[in-house]
Amino acid sequence: MMKEIRINAFDMNCVGHIQQGLWTHPRDQSTRYTQLDYWTDYARRLEAGLFDGIFLADVLGVYDVLGGSPDPAVRHAVQVPVNDPTLLIPAMATVTRHLGFGVTANLTYEQPFTFARRMSTLDHLTGGRIGWNIVTGYLDSAARAAGFAGQMAHDDRYDMADEYMALVRALWEGSWEDGAVVADRRTGTYADPAKVHVVHHKGKQYTVDAMHLCEPSSQRTPVLYQAGASARGTRFAATHAECVFLNGQAQPAVKQQVDSLRSEAEAQGRSRDAIRVFLGATIVTGRTDAEARDKFEDYKRHASSDGALVHAAASLGIDFSKYDIDEPIVTASQAIVSNVEAMTRAAGPQWTRRKLLDQFVLGSRQKPWIGSGATIAQMLVDWSEQCGVDGYNLSRTVVPECVDDFIAHVVPELQSRGAYKTRYSEGTLREKLFGRPG
Amino acid sequence: MMKEIRINAFDMNCVGHIQQGLWTHPRDQSTRYTQLDYWTDYARRLEAGLFDGIFLADVLGVYDVLGGSPDPAVRHAVQVPVNDPTLLIPAMATVTRHLGFGVTANLTYEQPFTFARRMSTLDHLTGGRIGWNIVTGYLDSAARAAGFAGQMAHDDRYDMADEYMALVRALWEGSWEDGAVVADRRTGTYADPAKVHVVHHKGKQYTVDAMHLCEPSSQRTPVLYQAGASARGTRFAATHAECVFLNGQAQPAVKQQVDSLRSEAEAQGRSRDAIRVFLGATIVTGRTDAEARDKFEDYKRHASSDGALVHAAASLGIDFSKYDIDEPIVTASQAIVSNVEAMTRAAGPQWTRRKLLDQFVLGSRQKPWIGSGATIAQMLVDWSEQCGVDGYNLSRTVVPECVDDFIAHVVPELQSRGAYKTRYSEGTLREKLFGRPG
Repeated sequence: MMKEIRINAFDMNCVGHIQQGLWTHPRDQSTRYTQLDYWTDYARRLEAGLFDGIFLADVLGVYDVLGGSPDPAVRHAVQVPVNDPTLLIPAMATVTRHLGFGVTANLTYEQPFTFARRMSTLDHLTGGRIGWNIVTGYLDSAARAAGFAGQMAHDDRYDMADEYMALVRALWEGSWEDGAVVADRRTGTYADPAKVHVVHHKGKQYTVDAMHLCEPSSQRTPVLYQAGASARGTRFAATHAECVFLNGQAQPAVKQQVDSLRSEAEAQGRSRDAIRVFLGATIVTGRTDAEARDKFEDYKRHASSDGALVHAAASLGIDFSKYDIDEPIVTASQAIVSNVEAMTRAAGPQWTRRKLLDQFVLGSRQKPWIGSGATIAQMLVDWSEQCGVDGYNLSRTVVPECVDDFIAHVVPELQSRGAYKTRYSEGTLREKLFGRPG
Repeated sequence: MMKEIRINAFDMNCVGHIQQGLWTHPRDQSTRYTQLDYWTDYARRLEAGLFDGIFLADVLGVYDVLGGSPDPAVRHAVQVPVNDPTLLIPAMATVTRHLGFGVTANLTYEQPFTFARRMSTLDHLTGGRIGWNIVTGYLDSAARAAGFAGQMAHDDRYDMADEYMALVRALWEGSWEDGAVVADRRTGTYADPAKVHVVHHKGKQYTVDAMHLCEPSSQRTPVLYQAGASARGTRFAATHAECVFLNGQAQPAVKQQVDSLRSEAEAQGRSRDAIRVFLGATIVTGRTDAEARDKFEDYKRHASSDGALVHAAASLGIDFSKYDIDEPIVTASQAIVSNVEAMTRAAGPQWTRRKLLDQFVLGSRQKPWIGSGATIAQMLVDWSEQCGVDGYNLSRTVVPECVDDFIAHVVPELQSRGAYKTRYSEGTLREKLFGRPG
């Protein structure tokens, strides 16, 4: 029996997510992102295709690094406008029974007490299908929106995040004991106060003196996702995360990231396979390799390098408009050192705007995998075996046909290889990902 | 043609809302509040009954005034546990087309920037059916949960709320011009940056320097609800609110509140009927007056005076456990003076715990109206005419049968009097409440 490959749809409550410009394709429906039935229809498709979940990205600022202006982001809809992702989940949960939901929330801008309640509510309403992608934010524009002069230093953000995690975990796990809720109509006792505890937390960033407002949900703590690639981010992920999302274009580099993450988890006293690792992937598929290639050529005509540059500039913290096309790009800021390390690995030590533009194949630095269902299935199995990843977060291209294509062409091929479920197992998202406790 | 009477269901994402103890009734289903289909089923019923909306209360703390402990609130499920109300809305919107949603959010604990996005997202997803009940909070326990030593003084909270309103309005109304979104696939222009503006706000409490993250929704600003009864609260409501929720047991007092609110609105340069006023009401009805009376007697056996006392103690800020049953209750705290004024009007100048307990008919101070559909319809029309209220927020008793009963018995009687719609009008919640601009 081959290892089961996990598949999440990777999406965002906006027009342009990873592959910029594809919203201009005549068959793309992402401009309907403000409509409820766009999302409920999407969720039904994903569950029909036995997707493990939908992973919703989010960002609380505007990409205004390129040219020091938000204008190009606004013009090309590069993750702006962007609506709140959490509010999609109850609607999508209404029309599904098994699909998991991973939602990005930036703890810098969320009160832990109200955030903990929001996650518990989602876990209740979905019957235990909630995951949280823990983000500490990287945009100065978000910090300014919240009234700060700028964001905190990178490592300080992770220290704050450690404290935040301790606090929300205490609310989720420590406030209401199992069995606290008795709901005894005869005696009029809903909960036993002796089993409900006030959480006392007095830390460097937060002071809370309160009981959690929610009775325990199926999972209590949502499945924890993390995506930090820096040394400090990896340590944070190895400590807290149950699922890690990473990106990479070459197998050796991805394998190295996965190995170092698993070793770090081991160093923290966890097992090497305590973490499910999801690799970001963009897939263009069809009945044959040739059909997939034709589809890719069609899509490519709608991709936007201008949009991709806006996103890359913000991710890397570099205003490329200040450099000539072949001028070597040098950066010294500590805050972006981890991003630049990753970039340098990808582009070679001497990199330029031209080299970056060359990397934009379909509207981002994420190179698409192109081929028939059989070709793609073999790639997914191969990357999984070579790099030790457990699954994939699929970036959308032209929606919803990219999802339909994956389900029609790739899923059956994965299933015939014994690498994909043929039906959902019962249980919470955590139980689906890690098995039910024996 | 009689004036149309508006009806909202008044509810909360918890077990015991206004009428305490009724969850113990064998037919009550409110213990299913954590389940999605409880709410979607509920929303379908409300829309079938042509309810204008569902108004969701919320509170971010625990009622721990009585005996200085949260234990009685926990035991009797007096608005605790309580889940996040906003997350119910996308699910209920999925199964309805016209039902409006009023949701309570405490601005003290919400970052204006992220809150504005959340409301815009809800307004998008519901197609313009969102209302916001503006609350500034009154519980020390909520303040402690957020890391403050205690809450702000009453009038300071309203000053902060004024600033908050100016800021979120600027985000909703001033950031994206009409026509900013062009979504032109040919040129790849999603939005025109010249029509998207950064909001610069530097106030006493908040500093924001950002564009609103959301493109305009149907209503832009949600329909604004408010429920403050103090002098400062009435001024705030007269300035900002489009709908006001108030409580009262006697027509002269209610009429006086309504008149003073409308005069204050006039003083602020608005018209006297710029505000839709909703009166809180608890209704027990049946095919005949006798059947309704029997139902009330049955319900009453499940009401909890202990639960009602927990809630009253927190609302009034008085620990009744410190007083003997007939000992006159004296309070001096400025913070609760407005509540005590209301209380004194209701109970007479010399009031005691016994007098308070006598007011608890069905698990709260809100006295139920009991009778056949015809009897209740006449009361609703009468109160509306005598006091100038526009509609009613119906507290639940035994759910969902209280809704079914209202729809089966009262709605047809209101309709036959020409005081209730026979179908929904098209348009947003604001347009449904105030008419479409000619």
